Amino acid sequence: MPLSLQIYNTYTHQKEKFEPLVPGFLGMYVCGPTVYGDTHLGHLRSAITFDIIYRYFLHKGYKVRYVKNITDVGHLTDELNETGEDKLQKKARLEQLEPMEIAQKYTYQYERIMEVMNVLPPSIAPRATGHIIEQIEFIQKIIDAGFAYVVNGSVYFDVAKYADTGNYGILSGRKLEEMLAGAGEERRELKEQDEKRNPADFALWKKAPEEHIMKWNSPWGVGFPGWHIECSAMSSKYLGQTFDIHGGGMDLVFPHHEAEIAQSHAGHNCIPARYWIHNNMLTINGQKMAKSLGNFITVDEFITGKHLLLEKAYSPMTMRFFMLQAHYRSTLDFSNQALQAAEKGLERLLEGYLFFMSVIPSESNNAVSMEEIKELEKKCYQAIEDDFNTPVLIAHLYSGLDLRTALTHHNKTIDESTLSALQNLYKSFLIDILGIKMEEKINTAQTELLHQLIDEILNLRYEVRLQKNFAKSDEIRDRMLKLGIEIKDTKDGSTWKWKG
Amino acid sequence: MPLSLQIYNTYTHQKEKFEPLVPGFLGMYVCGPTVYGDTHLGHLRSAITFDIIYRYFLHKGYKVRYVKNITDVGHLTDELNETGEDKLQKKARLEQLEPMEIAQKYTYQYERIMEVMNVLPPSIAPRATGHIIEQIEFIQKIIDAGFAYVVNGSVYFDVAKYADTGNYGILSGRKLEEMLAGAGEERRELKEQDEKRNPADFALWKKAPEEHIMKWNSPWGVGFPGWHIECSAMSSKYLGQTFDIHGGGMDLVFPHHEAEIAQSHAGHNCIPARYWIHNNMLTINGQKMAKSLGNFITVDEFITGKHLLLEKAYSPMTMRFFMLQAHYRSTLDFSNQALQAAEKGLERLLEGYLFFMSVIPSESNNAVSMEEIKELEKKCYQAIEDDFNTPVLIAHLYSGLDLRTALTHHNKTIDESTLSALQNLYKSFLIDILGIKMEEKINTAQTELLHQLIDEILNLRYEVRLQKNFAKSDEIRDRMLKLGIEIKDTKDGSTWKWKG
Repeated sequence: MPLSLQIYNTYTHQKEKFEPLVPGFLGMYVCGPTVYGDTHLGHLRSAITFDIIYRYFLHKGYKVRYVKNITDVGHLTDELNETGEDKLQKKARLEQLEPMEIAQKYTYQYERIMEVMNVLPPSIAPRATGHIIEQIEFIQKIIDAGFAYVVNGSVYFDVAKYADTGNYGILSGRKLEEMLAGAGEERRELKEQDEKRNPADFALWKKAPEEHIMKWNSPWGVGFPGWHIECSAMSSKYLGQTFDIHGGGMDLVFPHHEAEIAQSHAGHNCIPARYWIHNNMLTINGQKMAKSLGNFITVDEFITGKHLLLEKAYSPMTMRFFMLQAHYRSTLDFSNQALQAAEKGLERLLEGYLFFMSVIPSESNNAVSMEEIKELEKKCYQAIEDDFNTPVLIAHLYSGLDLRTALTHHNKTIDESTLSALQNLYKSFLIDILGIKMEEKINTAQTELLHQLIDEILNLRYEVRLQKNFAKSDEIRDRMLKLGIEIKDTKDGSTWKWKG
Repeated sequence: MPLSLQIYNTYTHQKEKFEPLVPGFLGMYVCGPTVYGDTHLGHLRSAITFDIIYRYFLHKGYKVRYVKNITDVGHLTDELNETGEDKLQKKARLEQLEPMEIAQKYTYQYERIMEVMNVLPPSIAPRATGHIIEQIEFIQKIIDAGFAYVVNGSVYFDVAKYADTGNYGILSGRKLEEMLAGAGEERRELKEQDEKRNPADFALWKKAPEEHIMKWNSPWGVGFPGWHIECSAMSSKYLGQTFDIHGGGMDLVFPHHEAEIAQSHAGHNCIPARYWIHNNMLTINGQKMAKSLGNFITVDEFITGKHLLLEKAYSPMTMRFFMLQAHYRSTLDFSNQALQAAEKGLERLLEGYLFFMSVIPSESNNAVSMEEIKELEKKCYQAIEDDFNTPVLIAHLYSGLDLRTALTHHNKTIDESTLSALQNLYKSFLIDILGIKMEEKINTAQTELLHQLIDEILNLRYEVRLQKNFAKSDEIRDRMLKLGIEIKDTKDGSTWKWKG
């Protein structure tokens, strides 16, 4: 199926028609977590954004190689000045563990949470520490090309030299001169800074102090890689020097992705990715969600409801749906009110989906037309292909629920092939692309059994009603209500739903 | 709490008192899976064996660093001759994927299955491809020590030279002369063999053919590490040159662990681990379980029951318990009969556990004595500390169920502190050390709902029977039976149970 996908490309600052490098194949690289702390809602927004993109391409039949890295070295506590301690090493010191124990602990946690959130695992999840050779070789290429210099066992990228090529700031729109002008005030005077020819230069390799745990031999002495080089080394290893999509949070545009482009340009003389996609941030009551502001919520807290800012626990799918109700490039404001609305909205959509899956087809003069379904399907594709506009897609899926009303209250019918198209539409968009799953209050075999038992009770109650024993029938209804099952009697029979 | 643990040490060929290198700390390295295929029951036996050991030390309050590696390079299809294709690369070719996609897919699967089996994740799960530098440096040490030689871009361990130190075969008991005598017949004549000074030599680094995908630069040219060197490099990196326990399946004693000892001895002049623990194999109807024999069962097949050799699906905890009913150094014969016995046995034990957890304490002249509990606890510790003898431990936990009979049928009572000791004993041994968890069927709120719905149906059926409508009552019974619920009518009313 040909694509008519439009993507907002941060690199060109505009929406563009997507053209794959090789028809039928997609190479995508996304910056994953730095594994030194609990997985939080910020991680989730990025993960879900790129999960939708991954799922969309899989749905279209693409063979996708999706690489999402794990940063387990080189990310220093003071990102701006490239100083301070390695984030993993600091956490390791605090928890009295070896840095790789920290990496293991939080990588494991991250992967478990992704599973709960129904985020598909990437094709490859390369770790920075697992690609030291590749990083060293990439740095050597940059040195050989004349865009990096060695000082006292460290290697720095020469931003001024690179800026002469006219490409610096191509992604973020930042100008070198402005940065240099501001640098004096912004940056503290530190020994490491003195090594740099220019305060805008960034580290490719850092000499390791004696007490540093995470370090490796290199042509420049014992040290560790800078934060940016891993992505250049790993993306080119697994996806080639140029690939289709590079993604990450908006906070990575500068300096991280700008540095990546500079590195690749210097080493490979090309821009690594053709489309650069960035998701926006999560705010809470209008304020940026951040550890330092104390309004930070981990995924575990969210699911258990154990956080002062949470009125209750929310299910993983509620969170997922809530995030999908905003476009990925908009800020998303977290509030209990919005979450509770998302919870109800998702329930309505899932009830509609289950209804469509269980409708018995029949033919009549008053049937739903195939054209209606095709029209709805077209709108859904237009929405997702308009820069992955999930809120508009969701609005269309809601509007499709009118068919449920038509089928239940207005005596409409639906024939087999039209029903099949309708079912296929909801399955494709709600389940496959938006990645909503039925939440497992218990495992699915047991859910099925629950439904069968409830149906049996409705049957038995029906016979009681046939005998006009309404007192008994009401008793059954009341007992079921106590179990959380709401029975509703209509002229066509009785239905039930879980009590809200 | 001091240990009086006895461990059978493959290295000394006898049971020995365990003494940690540093009191209160344990370093343990276990050979994990080669991630190129579905996780099978053989992987499980090793994983569960060392999980019990890990859990036991955690229970004793040890600070444990448990390293279990992921082999994702260097394991060739023809292990004996050290030729053929890299296992991951071959699988990648068959599945039309990049080798690292294969590693990711099967590592992910393995970790999910470990979670389902309630096997705790290790502290560090290092990957071979993530430690190429460390392997290269280790190889260099061996060369520098004179125990390895370089031929045409490959590096081989010099077994004859090493044998002069008197240490070769120290683990497996193999003699170099015997091996050389047999080598002519066993080993095919291959180009790679010609490079070796001695057929018993093994590869530390192999030159990569042009078409090889997984390769790295090294001082000896482009190549990839041999299978054995990763464990020496990674265990010494994370646990030091000497650590407490090294484990794996018995099939790894030779050549893998023998080679590891030789490498460490050559490079570090010490034996890497003090205690070498090896679990025995799984057989099926008396025959070794192997892919080639077609009697091979993956964990997924086991849980879903979808395999010709399986009469039904078994739960993960049934499999875990089944494995624990044999000592880890005995072969374990897989059969449906034994599994069904394990299923019933575990159910009885868990029912007993739940009973003890819900007993209401009271005092009387006919009370269970604290001495009885202490005696039982002592026996349980003796069992687990006798080389992790889980079958004997389980037998003691069964014998403790007599207390249940005493409390229910013989009017015995139990006071609060004695009950607390009893509860603590079962929680420690059954849940913490043996790692049995309540399966969904038993512990969810939804199970309760299932029971309530079934009771409701029995009530409604009772009324049908009061009306002497036995045809209807039989109909209900038959429909329930189809759902797996067996109703039995007695003179005291109707009861139900899950169909066996």
